[in-house]
Amino acid sequence: MTPEVPVDEDGVTAHRDAVIDLLGVLMYAELRAFDRLAEDSRFAPTLDGRAKLAAMAAAEVGHYVALERRLRSMGVAPEDAMSPFTDAIDGFHNSTRPSNWYEGLVKAFVGDGFAADFYGEIATFVDASTRELVLSVLEDTGHADFAVREVRSAIDADPQLAGRLALWARRLVGEALTQAQQVIAERDNIADMVIDGAGDLQSIGALLKRISNAHGERMRALGLST
Amino acid sequence: MTPEVPVDEDGVTAHRDAVIDLLGVLMYAELRAFDRLAEDSRFAPTLDGRAKLAAMAAAEVGHYVALERRLRSMGVAPEDAMSPFTDAIDGFHNSTRPSNWYEGLVKAFVGDGFAADFYGEIATFVDASTRELVLSVLEDTGHADFAVREVRSAIDADPQLAGRLALWARRLVGEALTQAQQVIAERDNIADMVIDGAGDLQSIGALLKRISNAHGERMRALGLST
Repeated sequence: MTPEVPVDEDGVTAHRDAVIDLLGVLMYAELRAFDRLAEDSRFAPTLDGRAKLAAMAAAEVGHYVALERRLRSMGVAPEDAMSPFTDAIDGFHNSTRPSNWYEGLVKAFVGDGFAADFYGEIATFVDASTRELVLSVLEDTGHADFAVREVRSAIDADPQLAGRLALWARRLVGEALTQAQQVIAERDNIADMVIDGAGDLQSIGALLKRISNAHGERMRALGLST
Repeated sequence: MTPEVPVDEDGVTAHRDAVIDLLGVLMYAELRAFDRLAEDSRFAPTLDGRAKLAAMAAAEVGHYVALERRLRSMGVAPEDAMSPFTDAIDGFHNSTRPSNWYEGLVKAFVGDGFAADFYGEIATFVDASTRELVLSVLEDTGHADFAVREVRSAIDADPQLAGRLALWARRLVGEALTQAQQVIAERDNIADMVIDGAGDLQSIGALLKRISNAHGERMRALGLST
């Protein structure tokens, strides 16, 4: 085994540091997603719901393992890649602890959806094989349908819940943006790659617009106003 | 899909209720094992150790899913099979919360090993295909080697730890037996099957002796006195 393999089999080594950062932030995000789903599974009103959330948590670990394999093939230790991002991701999760089952579901659906769109946009700027891997780990693990079904039926039963959950979703997005800005301020790699790749401010504007539109769609799917 | 399939493809339906109980108790034990490994992963001194425990937690969910499939093929709902055992298993875990990383590892290795031997002995009395499934989900998921390595090196660094962890292991086994007795007092199915299958008290004595010997071996592997 060679200690260091180029980023892409095609020989693309552009933005190697940004690729490592992307893998590192995603790996730690997967570990935390695992933690959170595992914790939330205890709020589940039924043993069946609990088992479903546990299965989703297990899927996140599968994603982690796939990302780790890629990172190691680049000769980078998991700890080194993840450690720059642990504070920001922990900060996000510590400041948005769901206080009940429905807040947990909204966080999983709206929060993870938002993050997936964000990382998916970044992935368009990396080499093809990393991109394919990143997009595959960002794929929904069945959580989305489950969350929409549970939240919608809860709102049908108690319409007042919609207002409280809409506020909660706004707080989630606000906290996510705060933490993302902090990471970008400290780590240039990903931002440089996006600015390089997008070419101009208009493209970056379009990218942000896509993320924002997809967020609005998710909120509507839950029956929540943005 | 037929609503109710016999216990075994060979048509063996003996002790159907005991098979359902065995699947139910194991399913809930897997869900709790998942919970516990997920919780313990947060004590891990490194991100790498944390990822390893998360992977083990994910393996427990895989076991749960396999057992659930079997149960559903018998026309039984997961909730119905698990609910008679939730109090005892919760009782065990609530009274044996690890207060640090090493207690968690000892609990996983000694406690799970003990439970695996116990369920493995019961599985000798059920139909062949259920037995095969049960033995496969009881297989160690890589946790054992990991726990032995970590605990032994911690004891080398701090020999006083051995005494504290040995006491902890004794408490784990004591609590496990208390809860097991409570379940047996309330649910006859499994006990009846074992008594039927073993034939005489001498065989049951031999069964308990095997479990006890294997426990002693695990304690020695960790460097702990029994």
